[in-house]
Amino acid sequence: MFMLHGRLGAKPGKRDDLLKIMSEAGEPLPGNRLYVVAVDETDADGVWATEIWESQEAHAASLRLDHVQQRIARAMPLIDTGGITQQRLDARAGIPG
Amino acid sequence: MFMLHGRLGAKPGKRDDLLKIMSEAGEPLPGNRLYVVAVDETDADGVWATEIWESQEAHAASLRLDHVQQRIARAMPLIDTGGITQQRLDARAGIPG
Repeated sequence: MFMLHGRLGAKPGKRDDLLKIMSEAGEPLPGNRLYVVAVDETDADGVWATEIWESQEAHAASLRLDHVQQRIARAMPLIDTGGITQQRLDARAGIPG
Repeated sequence: MFMLHGRLGAKPGKRDDLLKIMSEAGEPLPGNRLYVVAVDETDADGVWATEIWESQEAHAASLRLDHVQQRIARAMPLIDTGGITQQRLDARAGIPG
């Protein structure tokens, strides 16, 4: 199943603000099985998201949802776009839900 | 909460065998909230595990369980110990269970 493990780099001093936005419980995300938001203690500016989606299309569709776009718009000013990394995986076992 | 995202490197040609062992549904793991096993299509020899544990102690205790030790013993011959990486994270939102 379609899985992402990625880093959003926050601008200096903005990680906790970004983490707060990313951690908000939001409206349901159709096709989403996992959306964990985490920090890495060796990475002061990173907010990490680990996601599993029933399909790549479900993930793409989620980005077009109003509530998701509003959240992205609030987060963007806090993000250092140069600090974005994303690992694409194929989850094979242990998928929640 | 204690989270790991790590890579086990399989010896050449052994990834699928390692994946099979890692993907077996096993006995319950006390304190475990997530144990996803995945592959990364750009990484032919890697098996990736993303885990969330209620504590670091719960994770350490799991490694002492008989069924886990038996699984590790079966997997070890397939593992290139030089190919092990592990990111430690602190999961803050979206934790299953």
